Amino acid sequence: MSTIIHSNADILNMETRYRAAFINTLSGFKSANLIATIDEQGQTNCAVFNSVVHIGAHPPLLGFICRPDSVDRHTLENIQTTGVYSINHIHESIYLQAHQTSARYPKHQSEFDATGLHPEYLNGFKAPFVKESAVKMAMQLKSILPIAINGTLLVIGEIQSVSLPEDCMQTDGSVDIEKASTVAISGLDSYYKTQRLAKLSYAKPDSMPKVIG
Amino acid sequence: MSTIIHSNADILNMETRYRAAFINTLSGFKSANLIATIDEQGQTNCAVFNSVVHIGAHPPLLGFICRPDSVDRHTLENIQTTGVYSINHIHESIYLQAHQTSARYPKHQSEFDATGLHPEYLNGFKAPFVKESAVKMAMQLKSILPIAINGTLLVIGEIQSVSLPEDCMQTDGSVDIEKASTVAISGLDSYYKTQRLAKLSYAKPDSMPKVIG
Repeated sequence: MSTIIHSNADILNMETRYRAAFINTLSGFKSANLIATIDEQGQTNCAVFNSVVHIGAHPPLLGFICRPDSVDRHTLENIQTTGVYSINHIHESIYLQAHQTSARYPKHQSEFDATGLHPEYLNGFKAPFVKESAVKMAMQLKSILPIAINGTLLVIGEIQSVSLPEDCMQTDGSVDIEKASTVAISGLDSYYKTQRLAKLSYAKPDSMPKVIG
Repeated sequence: MSTIIHSNADILNMETRYRAAFINTLSGFKSANLIATIDEQGQTNCAVFNSVVHIGAHPPLLGFICRPDSVDRHTLENIQTTGVYSINHIHESIYLQAHQTSARYPKHQSEFDATGLHPEYLNGFKAPFVKESAVKMAMQLKSILPIAINGTLLVIGEIQSVSLPEDCMQTDGSVDIEKASTVAISGLDSYYKTQRLAKLSYAKPDSMPKVIG
């Protein structure tokens, strides 16, 4: 199998869209989530994000990377105004609709209306959830960290509640997200289902990990 | 299918390991990478990271979340000292060895020796790559952003070069990381292979996305 090497100069010389497609695949598989918000006038917004990342378990924090000059901006504005949002896993039956939320709809048009996904309001939480999602989290904004080097932002929120199918809870506390049909993303446009190779035991220096599931 | 709801208070009351297992699955599928470094004395280090995330394509930037008080600390120290590191995709044949790098080896023991992975030096780059990986990136440290809320760090580097199998390059610039056998992670300990559902066309407001691959 022959190997190809792209240098930093090669990358900087790539055509813009080609480079974006290339670099976006290099981090590996990405999480697939819909972030839903509402503005003070009651206008909802829903957008696909592939950059949601674990920040910490105690307190329970998730982050995502936001580009203020892109379609992300309505999401960001609403989060800054209301302080709340929801993160909803994308599963195998809604990935087409989820991808469609990345189209540049005008601010007055909700992606919920445009894509066939449905807003759902639960337990008095102000931001909508995605009704079709199996795993839904209510998030409270905690911090927005500017990433000076390219003008993006790391938006961090604390999990206020998690709703998920009871039969996806495993005995060790982990959620079987494959059983929930959660998908993975590569790059900007490719969606994947998964097949578990193994759940491994906690690694210790004196023995190799064992397959525990 | 019955739904279960965990509130913020429920989460804060969970046993520590149970909570860590729970929260670590909620972001969705995660990238699976080995980060390799070297110290000024020539001692190598190699550690599994599931938090590598795309920061931007121009300049080409990847970030990862680092916990300074964990097994991540040797990786961080070496990156701070030398300014360089490599990010290497974990594929289906090395995920056991990759997981084993998370054991708490003493600083004087290289995870390369302990796990059966091999360091490889390419084109005069100071940090080692993982010989067994198919997709390898040389990284130059650009920024370390403190995440004050929980004492973690977002470490951002610029891609200096990328080495990958030539037949994984697609015509639009994206890399077929499934063809490279790159795996995905859920939580702290579960490894997955993937199966592509679809590659979708760029989303536009006036039509639903088309399957293009």
